[in-house]
Amino acid sequence: MNKQTAITTQSHPGHSDLVADWDRLFRVFICPKGHASRATLIKYMDQILYGLNDFLKKNVGITEAVSLKDLSERFTDTVINDNPQKKLADVITCLIKEIAPHAVNVSSPYFVGHMTSAIPFFMVHLKTIVSALNQNVVKLETSKVVSVLEKQVIAKIHRVIYNNTEEFYRHHVQNADTTLGVFVEGGTTANLTAMWMARNAKFQPKADFKGIEADGLVAAYRAWDVDRCVVLVSRRGHYSLRKAAGILGIGNSNVIPIDICKNNRVDLSCLKRTIRRLQIEEPKTCILAIVGVAGATETGTVDPLEDLAEISTQVGTHFHVDAAWGGPTLFSKKYRHLLNGISLADSVTIDGHKQFYMPMSCGMLYLKDPAAMDVIAYHSNYVNRMGSVDLGIKTLSGSREANSLILDSALKIMGAKGYALLIDHGIETAAAFAREIKKRELFELMTPPVLNILTYRICPPHAKKLLETADNDRRRIINEKLNTVNRRLQQIQREAGTSFVSRTTLLRDNNPDDAIVVLRSVIMNPMTTLSILSEILDEQERIFERDLKGLLEGQVLVA
Amino acid sequence: MNKQTAITTQSHPGHSDLVADWDRLFRVFICPKGHASRATLIKYMDQILYGLNDFLKKNVGITEAVSLKDLSERFTDTVINDNPQKKLADVITCLIKEIAPHAVNVSSPYFVGHMTSAIPFFMVHLKTIVSALNQNVVKLETSKVVSVLEKQVIAKIHRVIYNNTEEFYRHHVQNADTTLGVFVEGGTTANLTAMWMARNAKFQPKADFKGIEADGLVAAYRAWDVDRCVVLVSRRGHYSLRKAAGILGIGNSNVIPIDICKNNRVDLSCLKRTIRRLQIEEPKTCILAIVGVAGATETGTVDPLEDLAEISTQVGTHFHVDAAWGGPTLFSKKYRHLLNGISLADSVTIDGHKQFYMPMSCGMLYLKDPAAMDVIAYHSNYVNRMGSVDLGIKTLSGSREANSLILDSALKIMGAKGYALLIDHGIETAAAFAREIKKRELFELMTPPVLNILTYRICPPHAKKLLETADNDRRRIINEKLNTVNRRLQQIQREAGTSFVSRTTLLRDNNPDDAIVVLRSVIMNPMTTLSILSEILDEQERIFERDLKGLLEGQVLVA
Repeated sequence: MNKQTAITTQSHPGHSDLVADWDRLFRVFICPKGHASRATLIKYMDQILYGLNDFLKKNVGITEAVSLKDLSERFTDTVINDNPQKKLADVITCLIKEIAPHAVNVSSPYFVGHMTSAIPFFMVHLKTIVSALNQNVVKLETSKVVSVLEKQVIAKIHRVIYNNTEEFYRHHVQNADTTLGVFVEGGTTANLTAMWMARNAKFQPKADFKGIEADGLVAAYRAWDVDRCVVLVSRRGHYSLRKAAGILGIGNSNVIPIDICKNNRVDLSCLKRTIRRLQIEEPKTCILAIVGVAGATETGTVDPLEDLAEISTQVGTHFHVDAAWGGPTLFSKKYRHLLNGISLADSVTIDGHKQFYMPMSCGMLYLKDPAAMDVIAYHSNYVNRMGSVDLGIKTLSGSREANSLILDSALKIMGAKGYALLIDHGIETAAAFAREIKKRELFELMTPPVLNILTYRICPPHAKKLLETADNDRRRIINEKLNTVNRRLQQIQREAGTSFVSRTTLLRDNNPDDAIVVLRSVIMNPMTTLSILSEILDEQERIFERDLKGLLEGQVLVA
Repeated sequence: MNKQTAITTQSHPGHSDLVADWDRLFRVFICPKGHASRATLIKYMDQILYGLNDFLKKNVGITEAVSLKDLSERFTDTVINDNPQKKLADVITCLIKEIAPHAVNVSSPYFVGHMTSAIPFFMVHLKTIVSALNQNVVKLETSKVVSVLEKQVIAKIHRVIYNNTEEFYRHHVQNADTTLGVFVEGGTTANLTAMWMARNAKFQPKADFKGIEADGLVAAYRAWDVDRCVVLVSRRGHYSLRKAAGILGIGNSNVIPIDICKNNRVDLSCLKRTIRRLQIEEPKTCILAIVGVAGATETGTVDPLEDLAEISTQVGTHFHVDAAWGGPTLFSKKYRHLLNGISLADSVTIDGHKQFYMPMSCGMLYLKDPAAMDVIAYHSNYVNRMGSVDLGIKTLSGSREANSLILDSALKIMGAKGYALLIDHGIETAAAFAREIKKRELFELMTPPVLNILTYRICPPHAKKLLETADNDRRRIINEKLNTVNRRLQQIQREAGTSFVSRTTLLRDNNPDDAIVVLRSVIMNPMTTLSILSEILDEQERIFERDLKGLLEGQVLVA
């Protein structure tokens, strides 16, 4: 039997009133004209905007009223119905009543565990406009003004980062041949694109060699007499850098993690030692890029970017700044100095769906040199023809939605000050939270906040005291016990569904033997106040007393 | 002066009523409770859904009433205002009145030039839901039920492609350890992911070598005694395959274009010759993958997938099918046989924003072997922990929006038959259009449609006659003249703004000297009828008579 003609769809009984026919199909495509049908469609939007919101309010955090296992068992039917199963109204109702309650209410002010948060309600309107227009920014012929607008908004953000002259921006803002930045899917793609550029810039064509993009990595290393490429970034660097190196053929083990100082910033002397060692012992190793972190995912800390820029210049390597998280700090007059040096970066990653509060998924990459992306340009006969203004020439992706419309509108609605207020609130609330944690003797602040992220853990006073004087072995044993407690704590709190912090594992003093499980808070929701954060600590204290204290008593870790 | 503290934002005069303050900020985040404000927000949705639609109707195609140059000059201000510049209402009005009229009305039935078209209106509602929920599918903690639902809808489409047993799907549908497919940004990322998998599967760890992802391409080639890798695909293959090879370090010149037959399918004997030559002359060349095209971007043609599968098995290489365009043809009982053999593919690309009629941007990759993606897995401490069900473990991207919700709902609303109706309409309308083109003596059908794409050109009867008997040189001269005419024709028609076909350049008989500029039509809009397509031909005839005939007369190409 020919597999392709087998029936992989089926007719469910009980939905015989819904039949796929040409009339029905026409109706779902054409925008209805009658007042009644228009009103119905608007009513659905009402349900989406408010029905969804009301349901979410009742379902704070990651409720585990239904376990993942039970939930999974409800989603096992894998056969597509031949005829329609549901009308739009029923689909919406089902999404609101059956899906939303088991989704995660990332917009709750008690959800402080990840970099996904409430978004201003107008963002939903803007995304709706983007999808109603359905432009494809790969090419002018499917986007026109939207490509023009994208270039403008990119120049606006470029200016916030690099602050070049008015003449510079006049020359480049609508220049078809140059690129100040690109919209990409997210921070991972932005970091990948930056490393891709750095790789191709290093291995340009020479003599018979047509460049690394054409001839590949082996030919490139041979032509340029290189044995291996490395990327240097602190231990706090995002894992997407390893992924980028893996994809690009450099090998992710060649992303060399540089130790960090007590303040979670890259240890410059360790970086310099590593560079010296490479230069002396491995003259054929190419330092492809040095990456500075501006808002580490785990700790929110920022590397000394000016120093990194200087070192990069000395080494003659690409300097990339991963500001996926921290980028919008530049809007805050009070705190932008924390990112000093970012204007010296060859490339900068910023995520729109993080502190620009845009809907998923929107990343961006900005470039100091408007010609830098020429090394990754691709053309074809039917799109992205040579010399055209098609934006798809210099992006990893092909077809792509017009998220630039959202960012441009959001900047107009919020103003730079609006974003600054959010940044200031996050940083200052995190600082207040850190003070509150220090006040409570059950907790230990692990990484104090620089931006709006901090980590801490449960560590009773007695355990703290023991740790102070314990030797390596004893410390490891104590920490392992505490790790169990903190891991369980995070799970119990998550399952209770009232609030949510995340957890990660950090090495104290870069020591693999001192792996410490910490609770992680990301404070980006303007509704998250110190009082809410205190409630979260209260709940953690209660959970500890009720469920976890016993785990430590046998070990004399509590008095 | 420290660049970072310089002012890169400004206060526009005349907007002093809009001030960024904490109260205002709060209001844009909180979903309003009062009936009046709720009603206002709903009114905006009304504007978005209908205001936008009405404007688009008046602006068919790519109107060039305002030239790109003039348009660009309106978008040169690169300074972000300190305070808000506009209220949401004004932003929406501006988008509708000032942006939309200069966007491209891809939903017009006269817009038949690209793979971007009308989408059913309910898609806009679904996208609104996705952005209101703002789940992040990188991880269960920020998506929960949506991750579960994503696995289910992937299994549904997998079943349409591979049609495995009920037991197979029961075992894998919610299995945290296995992967039937992934949602990605688009076809380009899907093809890249497939090549990434193929590369890593070929260069697995052995002895001291830790695998290509960790140790990189040079170490991999050395460990496995390989000199170069190649990917074999017809000349009709999408340019994203070259891009993928470039990114992955294989080198895009190692994507070897295989000649095509008269029917635009890959020439199997040429493919076999190429393989034999590589095997004999270059024993250290690794054939990484053979790619079959199921719906070529330029001609809509489909390679003989069963034959390609057989050859791939003999060679022992990864068989990938790029069905970004043609995939949903599987829903049509009448035409699914055109894709026979797709179930033998190791991986299959399908785009959601193409013939699933989803909003930009949504691609997918499907896998025959549910364990195949293990070779590209990445973990980190704070997301995607080992053994978790976090979907981000096996995707190129990190944070990612929940497009699976849209596809799942669309399948319920349309039914398999709904999609089949669209497919059948496209294929049959394209066939009728081809007959109409053949009837008109001014035109020459270049590539007859197999699916719903065809190409043709203006070629007056006298020129046709001359071409029949002309030698190579003379043919080239005639074709160059015709190319100029067809290039100009496409531009004039585009600028007139009533209808839009695209253009590309195809080689006749794989001969680089016979480069022919063709007009390309993609028929995916259910409102596009033969009568509309005839009108487009009428307009082309008129344009030719009025503006272009003169270009040919001197060359005796028209009687």
